[in-house]
Amino acid sequence: MANTTAPFLSHHELHKAILAIKILVTWNEESRLCANISTSSDRFTSALHQNKDWAAQIAKEDPSLFPTLANGQYPEILWIGCSDSRCPETTVLGLKPGDVFVHRNIANILHAGDLSSSAVIEYAVRYLQVKHIVLSGHTSCGGVAAALGNKQLGILDPWLLPLRQLRQQNLDLLNSMTPEQANLKLVELNVLEGVKLLKQKNVVLEAIEQRGLQIHGLIYDVACGVLRQLDTDESEEAIKARLTSFKTDV
Amino acid sequence: MANTTAPFLSHHELHKAILAIKILVTWNEESRLCANISTSSDRFTSALHQNKDWAAQIAKEDPSLFPTLANGQYPEILWIGCSDSRCPETTVLGLKPGDVFVHRNIANILHAGDLSSSAVIEYAVRYLQVKHIVLSGHTSCGGVAAALGNKQLGILDPWLLPLRQLRQQNLDLLNSMTPEQANLKLVELNVLEGVKLLKQKNVVLEAIEQRGLQIHGLIYDVACGVLRQLDTDESEEAIKARLTSFKTDV
Amino acid sequence: MANTTAPFLSHHELHKAILAIKILVTWNEESRLCANISTSSDRFTSALHQNKDWAAQIAKEDPSLFPTLANGQYPEILWIGCSDSRCPETTVLGLKPGDVFVHRNIANILHAGDLSSSAVIEYAVRYLQVKHIVLSGHTSCGGVAAALGNKQLGILDPWLLPLRQLRQQNLDLLNSMTPEQANLKLVELNVLEGVKLLKQKNVVLEAIEQRGLQIHGLIYDVACGVLRQLDTDESEEAIKARLTSFKTDV
Amino acid sequence: MANTTAPFLSHHELHKAILAIKILVTWNEESRLCANISTSSDRFTSALHQNKDWAAQIAKEDPSLFPTLANGQYPEILWIGCSDSRCPETTVLGLKPGDVFVHRNIANILHAGDLSSSAVIEYAVRYLQVKHIVLSGHTSCGGVAAALGNKQLGILDPWLLPLRQLRQQNLDLLNSMTPEQANLKLVELNVLEGVKLLKQKNVVLEAIEQRGLQIHGLIYDVACGVLRQLDTDESEEAIKARLTSFKTDV
Repeated sequence: MANTTAPFLSHHELHKAILAIKILVTWNEESRLCANISTSSDRFTSALHQNKDWAAQIAKEDPSLFPTLANGQYPEILWIGCSDSRCPETTVLGLKPGDVFVHRNIANILHAGDLSSSAVIEYAVRYLQVKHIVLSGHTSCGGVAAALGNKQLGILDPWLLPLRQLRQQNLDLLNSMTPEQANLKLVELNVLEGVKLLKQKNVVLEAIEQRGLQIHGLIYDVACGVLRQLDTDESEEAIKARLTSFKTDV
Repeated sequence: MANTTAPFLSHHELHKAILAIKILVTWNEESRLCANISTSSDRFTSALHQNKDWAAQIAKEDPSLFPTLANGQYPEILWIGCSDSRCPETTVLGLKPGDVFVHRNIANILHAGDLSSSAVIEYAVRYLQVKHIVLSGHTSCGGVAAALGNKQLGILDPWLLPLRQLRQQNLDLLNSMTPEQANLKLVELNVLEGVKLLKQKNVVLEAIEQRGLQIHGLIYDVACGVLRQLDTDESEEAIKARLTSFKTDV
Repeated sequence: MANTTAPFLSHHELHKAILAIKILVTWNEESRLCANISTSSDRFTSALHQNKDWAAQIAKEDPSLFPTLANGQYPEILWIGCSDSRCPETTVLGLKPGDVFVHRNIANILHAGDLSSSAVIEYAVRYLQVKHIVLSGHTSCGGVAAALGNKQLGILDPWLLPLRQLRQQNLDLLNSMTPEQANLKLVELNVLEGVKLLKQKNVVLEAIEQRGLQIHGLIYDVACGVLRQLDTDESEEAIKARLTSFKTDV
Repeated sequence: MANTTAPFLSHHELHKAILAIKILVTWNEESRLCANISTSSDRFTSALHQNKDWAAQIAKEDPSLFPTLANGQYPEILWIGCSDSRCPETTVLGLKPGDVFVHRNIANILHAGDLSSSAVIEYAVRYLQVKHIVLSGHTSCGGVAAALGNKQLGILDPWLLPLRQLRQQNLDLLNSMTPEQANLKLVELNVLEGVKLLKQKNVVLEAIEQRGLQIHGLIYDVACGVLRQLDTDESEEAIKARLTSFKTDV
């Protein structure tokens, strides 16, 4: 006689069972990939070898560098730039470890309420007492290209929103240009906007006033490796309006 | 006879007048500093010269590099590291422009809800299809030292809070160590925590499963220039629990 | 013979033309909807009418309320709760305008680095000197349900990540429960976690010490309207470890 | 003869000892406060009693409300407003639990990159399919007053920065007004700016186009309890520029 207690699964149990199978497949996949990985040679492994070579070479050619760095950092420059792999600040400035304090994010955007960049600026200006803040954009920026297109990009969309606001404010100008020109123009507008925001932060205003901290806007050309300075001068009128609106006291 | 309509200022007018004087003084100060600055030679100006030299040298020694970079970026590595000036990733890895996509913040901390790092990870993993994510801490980290101290640091405090949470969770261990040992231990715990968070992001989980994306935790020793790998292996049990809790589908 | 300069469009021009047509269609749509909207009666319009009725009624029944509120706010309670429409704090507490300072977000989650909730807590504790912070979760929370499922939710995913971390940490317990029980358990765990984070913020620690600020964890039952208090007591050991790790001085 | 192994403490040990004493004092203070608290009657305890009364009353007067709410929420309105205790949205709209989905923060500011408000908007528009988003400011806003002053406010400063930007952009106008007029003007400018940002988010643009989602800007007068609508109409030109810059497709 047939078993009357048939193995029916509730909707919830079925859902759980399917999920469990999926998880198992994924986990097997991860294990398999891990096994392959450990034996294969790759870019990361070779980079670790190159690091050892580099460290040995520096110890020979510049024997005081590591002992000096072991005592602390005294950088004079804070670099805020793009995550783009073609823009390694210390390399392109011809500088050494210890020279540049660095923040790099997608399209070197400064959001007013971003805790990450705010913490970097606070640390560099108040505690390291850097003498220069460099905000650098670069040609052929992928983030800028995305903001000039109309494709949904998930979590990148809120991040890139300030670029779209600049696009809207300069729409006629950008539409009158070739795509390459428009991309470069938006790169420049973004750097100028970021420099403006830097000068709205009280820790920066204080350091400008008290010890001559300087703010620079640059464009890096990935096709030739050269940095170019943007004109970020303000009128007396503009400086006064800025100080009135943003300067605060304890 | 004395003028009876004395020039009394209301409290509000007085406040405005004082502010106006302050602004004027600050603005004069800024103008004076700007005048001095434009003529003086400094670290930033010399860095711009070094950039020109560097670009000219690369054009000679590695003539295909800039033309190649002009065509786009194809980095295989995403580096998430500290803003510390002693840790320029591309330099210490012995690599070139184009090799490493980069995010650097104070103490290489990953906050679950941080849009800045989330956008970088999304861009690098989904669009650039990097093969490796490297999360690197380093010895003598100032952010870690701050989290082991008890001094108020303004806007840095919410940023450093995850480090204080690790401090609390490992208080007995850290208290049993010398300050130097405790600093290094918290640096390591912070990297392990960041690696954990990376593996909780769906874009990372998908890329691990579908194309073998690898996640690495490193410590950089600023006193000798050498990178050291941390053990970030998980038990099968832990992997299954992680996938069950964080793997999502459309 | 036909004109040989045929009107071919470059790829870029074609793309622009298609986009322009799309924009036009969308814009017509928006205009049409606006036209309809202005004449139709709806929930928002009726709410504006009800607001007028409410204001008139209060002016009659409680004639000193608006004049009192015009002079400033002196709330004793900061409520941090869920955006869920079923949890209007002032209503369910039987209180009046002026009684409760409020922050509401998805699933009443507190992220360590969230500027929005941090600003609310700072303002309420330091400037309004509230005597109580209430963190309230509620039954049938949609955000908690989402975190117990495995569906991709775009920008909600990083926001909900702390809930998934709690899911992972309590996976065996949650798996042993019915979906309803698991939902309620995660709601409770989330409130306890939030209370913990509140007590890790220096502005809160100071106010507890100096003037007896109290922190409460509650669960609101949407099916009966009743609030229930969670036990948030800590051992002496735990309090000491917390103060050692999070208490800071100027 | 005196003991020669005198109890000298190293600098580090001394620091630790002082910290330990401080912690102990603070902890005693916390314990003492807790003891007092549990017995005293206070605003929070009375609010919990009032909640019980309210729930019992509703169960009698509106017996279907709680059973209905137990089945889920179907609000038609998303309210984004200020944390100010004088602005409990559901109360002032004369509405009931279940009617309004809510986000409240300091000065009802919308930051482009704020995950908290972004998550609320996503949830309300995409999943709850609300028909109206209401962004409401209010008279006598403390956050707005702070942005019109020049006092340092710690973590509130980055949060309030968009208000200072509006102050700078409208400096001549605001300076020509009395403090009360300037406060109200900045409240209005802030709501208009927030409405603009709402219409720049793709999830909102889609819902406007596909199902007629409406966006409203309101000012709530705390001195009389009445809501007033702002004119947020745009020219055709402005709508087209906005859609071109912010509308995205999958």
